[in-house]
Amino acid sequence: MKIVIPWVQNVVQKTFKKKILYRRLPILGWLPNYNKKDVIIGDIIAGITVGLMMVPQGLACANIAGLAPQYGLYGAFAGSFVYIIFGSCKDISMGPTVIVSLLTYQATNGKAPEYAILLCFLSGIIQLLMGIFNLGFLVDFISGPVSSGFTSAMALIVTAYQAKDILGLKLPGTTFVEVCYNIFSHITDINVWDTVMGLTSIAILVLMKVFSSRKSNSKTLPVAETKSKPTNKIQKVFGHVLGMLFNCRNALIVVLCSVIAYWSLKFYEDSPFTLVKDVPSGLPAFSLPPFGFGNGNETTTFPEMVSSYGSGILVVPLLSLLEDISTCKSFANGKSVDATQEMIAVGLCNVVNSFVHGHPGSGAMARSAVNRRSGVRTQMASLYTALLVIIALLFFTSSFYYIPKCCLAAIVIAAIIFMVDVKAIVPMWKTKKSDFWVGLATFIACLVIPLAAGIMVGVVIHLLFILYYASRPEIYIETQMTPCGKKYLLVTPDRFLVFPSAEYVRNLVTKHSVSQGIPVIIDCLHIHDSDYTTATAIRTLISSFSTRNQPLFFLNIKPNVLSMFKATSSDEFVILNCKNDIASVL
Amino acid sequence: MKIVIPWVQNVVQKTFKKKILYRRLPILGWLPNYNKKDVIIGDIIAGITVGLMMVPQGLACANIAGLAPQYGLYGAFAGSFVYIIFGSCKDISMGPTVIVSLLTYQATNGKAPEYAILLCFLSGIIQLLMGIFNLGFLVDFISGPVSSGFTSAMALIVTAYQAKDILGLKLPGTTFVEVCYNIFSHITDINVWDTVMGLTSIAILVLMKVFSSRKSNSKTLPVAETKSKPTNKIQKVFGHVLGMLFNCRNALIVVLCSVIAYWSLKFYEDSPFTLVKDVPSGLPAFSLPPFGFGNGNETTTFPEMVSSYGSGILVVPLLSLLEDISTCKSFANGKSVDATQEMIAVGLCNVVNSFVHGHPGSGAMARSAVNRRSGVRTQMASLYTALLVIIALLFFTSSFYYIPKCCLAAIVIAAIIFMVDVKAIVPMWKTKKSDFWVGLATFIACLVIPLAAGIMVGVVIHLLFILYYASRPEIYIETQMTPCGKKYLLVTPDRFLVFPSAEYVRNLVTKHSVSQGIPVIIDCLHIHDSDYTTATAIRTLISSFSTRNQPLFFLNIKPNVLSMFKATSSDEFVILNCKNDIASVL
Repeated sequence: MKIVIPWVQNVVQKTFKKKILYRRLPILGWLPNYNKKDVIIGDIIAGITVGLMMVPQGLACANIAGLAPQYGLYGAFAGSFVYIIFGSCKDISMGPTVIVSLLTYQATNGKAPEYAILLCFLSGIIQLLMGIFNLGFLVDFISGPVSSGFTSAMALIVTAYQAKDILGLKLPGTTFVEVCYNIFSHITDINVWDTVMGLTSIAILVLMKVFSSRKSNSKTLPVAETKSKPTNKIQKVFGHVLGMLFNCRNALIVVLCSVIAYWSLKFYEDSPFTLVKDVPSGLPAFSLPPFGFGNGNETTTFPEMVSSYGSGILVVPLLSLLEDISTCKSFANGKSVDATQEMIAVGLCNVVNSFVHGHPGSGAMARSAVNRRSGVRTQMASLYTALLVIIALLFFTSSFYYIPKCCLAAIVIAAIIFMVDVKAIVPMWKTKKSDFWVGLATFIACLVIPLAAGIMVGVVIHLLFILYYASRPEIYIETQMTPCGKKYLLVTPDRFLVFPSAEYVRNLVTKHSVSQGIPVIIDCLHIHDSDYTTATAIRTLISSFSTRNQPLFFLNIKPNVLSMFKATSSDEFVILNCKNDIASVL
Repeated sequence: MKIVIPWVQNVVQKTFKKKILYRRLPILGWLPNYNKKDVIIGDIIAGITVGLMMVPQGLACANIAGLAPQYGLYGAFAGSFVYIIFGSCKDISMGPTVIVSLLTYQATNGKAPEYAILLCFLSGIIQLLMGIFNLGFLVDFISGPVSSGFTSAMALIVTAYQAKDILGLKLPGTTFVEVCYNIFSHITDINVWDTVMGLTSIAILVLMKVFSSRKSNSKTLPVAETKSKPTNKIQKVFGHVLGMLFNCRNALIVVLCSVIAYWSLKFYEDSPFTLVKDVPSGLPAFSLPPFGFGNGNETTTFPEMVSSYGSGILVVPLLSLLEDISTCKSFANGKSVDATQEMIAVGLCNVVNSFVHGHPGSGAMARSAVNRRSGVRTQMASLYTALLVIIALLFFTSSFYYIPKCCLAAIVIAAIIFMVDVKAIVPMWKTKKSDFWVGLATFIACLVIPLAAGIMVGVVIHLLFILYYASRPEIYIETQMTPCGKKYLLVTPDRFLVFPSAEYVRNLVTKHSVSQGIPVIIDCLHIHDSDYTTATAIRTLISSFSTRNQPLFFLNIKPNVLSMFKATSSDEFVILNCKNDIASVL
């Protein structure tokens, strides 16, 4: 405790220094200048566009997380308010996301909503702590291939989950294999109405997405290109309206499908579509997250709830951060992202969300892209998004009754199916075969076992490659000749020498030097670090050379490495500063 | 299976090639020339000396392993025969060792001997497989500090275990903390007779050990020094006899203590010392290891036995190999040790031992040192050791009745207490602080939790250091100037770039290049490897430089790294072969 308290004090002091205050409260940087008309209008348009996307996505994410639809909206506004103050990236739209909702479902097994709400609170706390104590480097251990494999598998799993709703089936199962098996064994029970509407919605959404991404592709690098293509005003306005329509395609399709479902009630007593049905109206009560809860006679305690999450308690906050930070990076145009600040912001958003019955969320990749494309200027856009969600909760829940579930599923599938990372396969294979195999292993693991365990498998496998790399350095061995014709052996290890490689290097050097019997030079050019185990092996090497009366020299040795090698040994090192010195020593 | 079968065939074929046959059966190398008188006499003297040490050590090791005394002798002869044929190091004395016996005790919890015998068989099989499939590199992951910490803790634990016998107490407990607590809470129940005899024995043994190691120290480097000090014949013979007496000190002290114990029966009806008592006479039956066994009404199945070992099933074979191979290395005089062959030899010894009711063993460090000091010439010395053990089992078990347990405990303590690796602390601290902390952490972990778990904790902590090293490369950043006066930034990472460091490096380079705004050269001299994640980060870096119109060059880039970087990117790399080229490019 004597060490911990000053350390905590130090961290707290650092956090609240005036200079740091602007980094920790990014709102101080932009709010004082928030008065230009075009900036405000840009934010309002982007905010409302994202809001129209947020409402159906929220409902769909709640469904993915195994919760009643209203929970998706509960988690979609409070975090946005918090992000305005603490968020460092203007494009981010904080709220429920497909990835985090799916992980939440697998961590809570679709049990009572209290589990998801507490998980939201705990995830926020963990993210906050990671930000405060600079543990963001943990995210670095999720490599590109592992992340690709995970995302692709996640996309397939979500598609399979949502396929149940498209087909109008109600089935259990958490892993991909289970869900697929259950769908195929109940394929005869499908609801034709749901299926037709769902597939049509997917087709329309995908077409609109392809079209709009083509349009926006021609708009990338706005600084360089906006002036190159002069267009007349009508074309410009038409283009803007079409762009907005495309960006609001989710809301459009929901309205369209709901109208059809409502209209179908004229002909059938009960709608032939599977509908969302009753969504309670009004804002959620502001209350403490449930640290344990009672259900009839049974009470579930806090420790029971926490232990039921398994590895999800770590994987949910970590991947929520990964999604947010990689979204920030993709919009940073090569500028560096303040990962620490994002961790604090996302953490606070989740903590606050848990007080209004939200489930874990993050900065959603898809919504943030729409936010950017709609011309967001500052974090204030989130305000309008949040207000729209609140309006929806207060006044429109009754009309949510008629939303067909298949339509929400179609929205998710149309967004997620493009995340199967097919494009990465060829470059990954070309770059490094082992990376490809790691990606594939992660992909398969995530499909077969729960996602949280699958990504852990991938991370561990990839780390084993690094350990193997550290344990088997490449060692170049050549016979060279001094100007006066004396032969010597030049041994060049290509990397740092640490314990897993110490004996390997010693054996290799011994083998070659015994068989050749000529003086040996070890070129330490690339050895930037070493350790006690290696130093011990080097000592043995030196003493065996001196027993054989075979000269051994060290070339280009770094001072820190030399002092390590000398610490274990009183033997004399013969050090060369330059290869040509060998002529004078031999 | 289509892949496995040809692979196994390939391995088998390789194993039985004629050229390899001599490596796999080292006996073929020395037996044909085994006819010189001095070689044979040297082996007989060494073999008998070691045998006199083996018998009391075997009894003591059985006690450590929680078995009846005879089991220590059962595991002390069959393996020696096998080692004659397969062993690659003449000095090794195969049989029960303190380390492996202690690990066996912690893995079997001192249950029925069947557990220890099956563990012996399974350890042998695992070691054999590790040898055949070249998995010996696993031993490399136990670093010097971890091994020091483990050995020191092990020495303290064994001392605590044996202190019970010295004090004449019978107490439970597996970890150091438990055992110490139990001893102190029963300190009033000690047997004064045992205590006095035990402490005296320890004192005598330690004095003799110190004296003999001083003598042998003056004898090291025999090639260089034997001729420098001419001594007359009487001195020489006297020295030899004294040396042999010192080397047989364990047997001497056992005989002495047994005589005292026998003599005490003249005055007391029941001996005041705690004696070994009945040891069954005769050789053990040759039988299959117990794959499950019955005990009254209860039967224990094979899977139940295997799962009861926990991580011991991996740690026992691994540390048994570590002890054997490091013993070989310490006698190899810098020559390389054939680790694969040793794994096969130790594996076969344990398999065969399990057929004669032995418990897991290894090449014991202490006995092998005595073997060498007594002038062993070939592996044949093991034959005489084994014969002596057999003779002891056939004819002397009745006299083992009178051996006081405290005397066996004294033998173990006198040998083991010197293994507390105090000497390593200072060089370890000087070499690398982190290595010292890892060693200390392992030491504490091994004392507090069972040894097998403690060493695992040490290994994992030390591997985390390597991962951290891979994730945070040192990056040297300097502003330099071309001959014609143009400034540029030279960025030199000091090691391979792989995924845990990719984002860190990109952020650092971006930060410095944005703030300076001058051309940047990345010197890839020390980058010998990379991966897909880094290549993606480099692509982002290049495109952000081109957006800023800031030039970026790569210097000294290795062909394999270049092809990786190019695989993910169609952007053009500007590569410099020499730093002076920059003048012509800018």
